[in-house]
Amino acid sequence: MQEIKTVLIVGSGTMGRKIAFLTAAAGFETRIYDISEKALADAQKGVERIVRRAVARGAIAASEEEGVLARISSFTDMALAAKDADFISESIPEDPALKGRVFGELNRLCPEHAIFTTNTSSLMPSMFAGATGRPDRFAALHFHNPEVDRIVDIMPHPGTSKETMAAIQDFVKAIRMIPIEMHRENPGYVFNSMFMSLLGSALTLAARGVASPEDVDRSWMGVMQMPIGPFGMMDQVGLETVWKITDYWASVTKASQAKANAAYLKPFVDEGKLGAKTGTGFYSYPAPAWGQPDFLEGTQASG
Amino acid sequence: MQEIKTVLIVGSGTMGRKIAFLTAAAGFETRIYDISEKALADAQKGVERIVRRAVARGAIAASEEEGVLARISSFTDMALAAKDADFISESIPEDPALKGRVFGELNRLCPEHAIFTTNTSSLMPSMFAGATGRPDRFAALHFHNPEVDRIVDIMPHPGTSKETMAAIQDFVKAIRMIPIEMHRENPGYVFNSMFMSLLGSALTLAARGVASPEDVDRSWMGVMQMPIGPFGMMDQVGLETVWKITDYWASVTKASQAKANAAYLKPFVDEGKLGAKTGTGFYSYPAPAWGQPDFLEGTQASG
Repeated sequence: MQEIKTVLIVGSGTMGRKIAFLTAAAGFETRIYDISEKALADAQKGVERIVRRAVARGAIAASEEEGVLARISSFTDMALAAKDADFISESIPEDPALKGRVFGELNRLCPEHAIFTTNTSSLMPSMFAGATGRPDRFAALHFHNPEVDRIVDIMPHPGTSKETMAAIQDFVKAIRMIPIEMHRENPGYVFNSMFMSLLGSALTLAARGVASPEDVDRSWMGVMQMPIGPFGMMDQVGLETVWKITDYWASVTKASQAKANAAYLKPFVDEGKLGAKTGTGFYSYPAPAWGQPDFLEGTQASG
Repeated sequence: MQEIKTVLIVGSGTMGRKIAFLTAAAGFETRIYDISEKALADAQKGVERIVRRAVARGAIAASEEEGVLARISSFTDMALAAKDADFISESIPEDPALKGRVFGELNRLCPEHAIFTTNTSSLMPSMFAGATGRPDRFAALHFHNPEVDRIVDIMPHPGTSKETMAAIQDFVKAIRMIPIEMHRENPGYVFNSMFMSLLGSALTLAARGVASPEDVDRSWMGVMQMPIGPFGMMDQVGLETVWKITDYWASVTKASQAKANAAYLKPFVDEGKLGAKTGTGFYSYPAPAWGQPDFLEGTQASG
């Protein structure tokens, strides 16, 4: 395997910026590609904020700040961005046809040895592996929130080579993250599969009228000794996202309980009660009941 | 509702003893009934240990120790134990016919106003509600580990009266626990439903060969920032118990993945690798890999 020196981040949104920081902080020459100068200008400011936050929490030294930023460059010209790139991390919109088209272009422009990875959160790599033109050198490399945790899923599709998996694993370690190696393609990364099962089970209890969201959260927090329960977590993720995933699975599995859970979430979405970011979801923000010291006792008003 | 003064604990095993401590510590006259003097003598020693641990962790003052123990008495004569009892908590073996028979006897011997509750972990109260002779004054009242958490599920069956639910709720608060009110009977208490979904999802990932138990645990621990993951938790619960529940659900639901998960657990049970208590399960004890500081990094040998 060719040594990785230059990393190309495709898509300059929230995730692309965070991944660009990681690779630049680890010493890789990092390029960010996006279609507009405006997007790249925004991303530049975003990366600067990420770097400042990293200094603030001690992830990098203040003296490293300048060097990290100097290793990041921006491109609207894909041919220039792709030249001599050794490793691609894609974080563009969740459309398999779009992803396939962009990887197809990159395949023409990148060196033959370059490894292609997608940070897709909901698609399976096999959906556009063929379109990449180099399926053996392609896999999903999925980040959670690298400012908070270090877990990274590596998910192959049936055509991903062992060498590619090993090279991605080494790359993940080089950027100081923790690789979770998936041995086969799966509808859901490792953490996400468990998390959605937990949320689905919590939703089922509330949608069936077995217990209130507050009591469901109390149970989880009380027994697990955790500071937040499933409905509090859903408010953090955003109820539109939780609804979309629930509704998608309801349509795939045709399971009546999944449909009931999606229907239970829908009014929140329709009324714009999307969770913490909108001020209301299962709880009211910025001071949700679940965060109050007496929440477990159940003595405060709900909200 | 009649005031509750005297609580009768039926069954002097681990849970019966812990519940007896709670009720005695809250000031209730507490009676423990069991079929043999030997069982009761063991229980007496067990309760003394529970009381000492409660003093050690500051749950009660050392000065209260004597008073708590003085409020607990033991009986092999059910008629004597049942006389003037206001509240019954049953923790005998998980056999609906046995539970029904014992509650039927208690129904003849207890005051008419007495409330009957079962601490069953896996049965539904409706399975023996009729046999209690007082279905309206009967519900499940389920404790987790009251030495560690304060969560208590109250689960009605379709015939439980509102007054009974309210009285049980008040009783739970009186013994300083946190009541989780279930509005209808459900195959699984609130926390247990979510916990089994999480464990089932983790098992599915490993049984399907998607990821190793260690990587599944790393994902959960890393993203949730928890000190233990699902496979570590299974080792704590005991793999025989996890297998029994998984196998039971496989037989009820006929779901092929549940069957595969049960089959994945079976060799551990057959080989006596039941988890922490036997020294081996998914990990080796007493110093399991998941408890080591470098576990998330994945650099230590598995075990």
